[in-house]
Amino acid sequence: MSLVTLLTDFGDQDGFVGAMRGVMLRADPALKLVDLAHHLPRGDLAKASRVLLRAAPCFPEGTVHLVVVDPGVGSARRALVAEAAGHRFVAPDNGVLTAVLEALGGGTCRAIDRPDLYAPQLSSTFHGRDLFAPVAAALATGRVQAAELGQIVEARALSGPERQAIIEVDRFGNLITNVPNQQGVLMSVCGMRLKGPSEAYASVPSGALVLVAGSEGTLEVAVRDGSAAQRLGARVGDEVVCTPADARASSTS
Amino acid sequence: MSLVTLLTDFGDQDGFVGAMRGVMLRADPALKLVDLAHHLPRGDLAKASRVLLRAAPCFPEGTVHLVVVDPGVGSARRALVAEAAGHRFVAPDNGVLTAVLEALGGGTCRAIDRPDLYAPQLSSTFHGRDLFAPVAAALATGRVQAAELGQIVEARALSGPERQAIIEVDRFGNLITNVPNQQGVLMSVCGMRLKGPSEAYASVPSGALVLVAGSEGTLEVAVRDGSAAQRLGARVGDEVVCTPADARASSTS
Amino acid sequence: MSLVTLLTDFGDQDGFVGAMRGVMLRADPALKLVDLAHHLPRGDLAKASRVLLRAAPCFPEGTVHLVVVDPGVGSARRALVAEAAGHRFVAPDNGVLTAVLEALGGGTCRAIDRPDLYAPQLSSTFHGRDLFAPVAAALATGRVQAAELGQIVEARALSGPERQAIIEVDRFGNLITNVPNQQGVLMSVCGMRLKGPSEAYASVPSGALVLVAGSEGTLEVAVRDGSAAQRLGARVGDEVVCTPADARASSTS
Repeated sequence: MSLVTLLTDFGDQDGFVGAMRGVMLRADPALKLVDLAHHLPRGDLAKASRVLLRAAPCFPEGTVHLVVVDPGVGSARRALVAEAAGHRFVAPDNGVLTAVLEALGGGTCRAIDRPDLYAPQLSSTFHGRDLFAPVAAALATGRVQAAELGQIVEARALSGPERQAIIEVDRFGNLITNVPNQQGVLMSVCGMRLKGPSEAYASVPSGALVLVAGSEGTLEVAVRDGSAAQRLGARVGDEVVCTPADARASSTS
Repeated sequence: MSLVTLLTDFGDQDGFVGAMRGVMLRADPALKLVDLAHHLPRGDLAKASRVLLRAAPCFPEGTVHLVVVDPGVGSARRALVAEAAGHRFVAPDNGVLTAVLEALGGGTCRAIDRPDLYAPQLSSTFHGRDLFAPVAAALATGRVQAAELGQIVEARALSGPERQAIIEVDRFGNLITNVPNQQGVLMSVCGMRLKGPSEAYASVPSGALVLVAGSEGTLEVAVRDGSAAQRLGARVGDEVVCTPADARASSTS
Repeated sequence: MSLVTLLTDFGDQDGFVGAMRGVMLRADPALKLVDLAHHLPRGDLAKASRVLLRAAPCFPEGTVHLVVVDPGVGSARRALVAEAAGHRFVAPDNGVLTAVLEALGGGTCRAIDRPDLYAPQLSSTFHGRDLFAPVAAALATGRVQAAELGQIVEARALSGPERQAIIEVDRFGNLITNVPNQQGVLMSVCGMRLKGPSEAYASVPSGALVLVAGSEGTLEVAVRDGSAAQRLGARVGDEVVCTPADARASSTS
C-alpha cells in the first residue's frame, strides 16, 4: 500500500489538486492519496512548514509527502527530494521542509533532475502537476529511488524561529508559540500576563484566556469558546516572553 | 475493506485532519478513510448531528464513523463508542450521536476506557489525534470489538428538536425544517405563508420562494436561484407553523 | 481498481458529498473515490466546465467522472452519461460536459433512463445522491455499461466561448483567457497592454503584471505575488484583444 500525502495552497475550487491526483493515479491507480491540507493561505511557507511538521510524522514510514506551496514556481528555485527516518518528501527548495527534517533527526536532500519523469511539456506555472506529482508517484510506486533523482544538496541555513514568538494562529484563533511546554511558567503576550499551563481549555470559564500545553509540545494561548487572536489582536510573529512563575506569588494572585 | 468516515469542525488549513489520517493509516495503511465534512462551524453540535444523520446511514454496514466536534476537549466529558444497525460510531459524549442512533433504531453506547490504545502522551487539546483516531482505527481493523472498549452507558435524555422549527440552513440558504414531508400543507415562516410542497425548486420562477419536500424527509423552504435565509432573515431555531392547506382555497389563490 | 472522480458545488459543510460517497461505497466498498473540487461557486457551470477540462483528462482511461453542479435539479433536465477517449462522464444535461468532450475528440452522449438503478424514493432536490451517484457506481463497478443506460442524444449546440475573453479567474486572481499560447503577442486587457508571453511569473518584479503561457495551453495574465483580477478590476467575460507583437517595437519598449 503506497501512500502519498498532499499539502498545497491550492484550495478546492479550481481543480488544481484534482489534476495532480489524476496524474499520480495515471501512474498507478493503486496509489493511496491522502490530504494533509489544501486551504493554506497562498504562499504561506511558515504555515505550510508547521502543518507538515504536525501531520507528516503521524504517517507510517515509507510515506511520500508531496508539498506544493511554491511561490517561486517557474523561477530557478530547485525541486527537492528528502529522506528522513523512513519518510520521503518532495517539495520546492524554499525552506518548507526544514522544520520537519529537524524533527525527524535530519535527512538527506537532493536536487531533482530527472526531466524524463516530468510531463512532456513542462509548464512554467504548474509544476505541481508537471514535475512534483510525477516524481512523487514514481517514488511511491518504487519505479525510482530517491538516490536516483539527483545530486545531494548540503543542508543550507534556512531562517527558523529564533525568538520566542507566536508562530501560528489556527482557525480557532489559538496562538501557538515556539516555547516548549514546561511547568510553572508566566507568559507575557500582547501586554497580558498568563500563568500556566492549565490542564485544558475547559479549566477556565467560557470567554477566559488560558495558557495550555499545545498538542505539538509548545505552549499555546487560547480563549475558551472564543478567539485569542481576536481578543489580543495577536498575530504570527508577535513576541512572547516567558519566565518561571514564582509559586508563592502564584498562590496569592 | 474497512471503512472509516471522518466528521470534524477542523477545516482544511491546519493539518489537524491530516494528523488524524496519519495516525489511522499508521495503524493500518489499508484502511479506507472517507470524509463526511470538515468545514462545520466550530463546535456546532446541532449541525454536526444533522450532517451525521444525513450521510452516515448511506454507508455500508460495518463502517466506523469518527466524529470529532468536541468543544469539551480536555474536560471530563466521556468518549463514546456506539453500535447501531451494524454501524459503529466513535465520538465525544456531547449529544452529537443522538439523532443518528434514533434514526437507526437505537443502539448501545459505551464509555471508552482503554488508555492502552491511546497515544502514549495524551494531549489535553487534541483527542482527535490521540484518543479518537487510534480507537476508531482499532475498531475498523478488527483489533478490538466495541464491547471491549468500556462499560455500557444508559441512553440519557439529550435535548432534541421539539417545536416545529428551522433546524438547519444549508450553504445555499435553504431552510430545512423538522416538519415531516406531507401533502397539502400551509407553512408560516418568518411572517410568510407558503403552500406546498411544490415538485421542485424549478417549479417556481427564478427568485421566488418555494416550499419543497427536502431530501431528508422533511419540508424545506427555498428561493430558486437565491437564498431563502437571506430573503426571510431566517435563522436556525426560528419557529414554523404548519396547517393543512384547504384544497378549495388553494385553487383560487 | 475502479476510479470515480467527484466534482460538485456542495462545499464541505453539509455532508452532501459525504452522502454521495456513502451511496457509492455501499454499492462497492472497493471503489476508489477521488475529489476534483467541491467549493465551486454555486451553480457556476462555466467554472465547473473549466475545472473538469483541467483535471479529468489527467486521469487514466476507464475513470468515471461524476459531476453534480445542477441548478436544474428537479426540473425536466436530462441526466447524461457520456463516453469519450475511454473516459466516462455522468452529469446533468446542462452543458457542463461540452468542453471536455471536445478536448477528448468528441464522444457519445446518452440520456440516462434507468429508474431501477436510482434510490427507491427519488427526491426532487438531491439527484446527486439518488440518481447520479448510484449510476456512476454501477458504471464504475462494471455492473452496467454506458450503452445500457439510455438512448443516444445528438450533440446539441451549447454556448461556448466565441470571443477572445477572460474565461476564468482562479483563486490567486490570475486571469485565464481562451487565447491559445503563442509567441510574440500583444494583449489588450482592461485598458492595459501586455507583451508576452514571459517565461514565468518570476520573470517580473514582485507586484508587476505579466502575461504568461498558462498551464492549460492558453494565455494568462497575472500579477507576481498579487492578484491581477484586483489590480485590473477584471472579471470573467471581459474581452481581450490579441495582436502579433512587432519584434522591432518590442525591442525598444
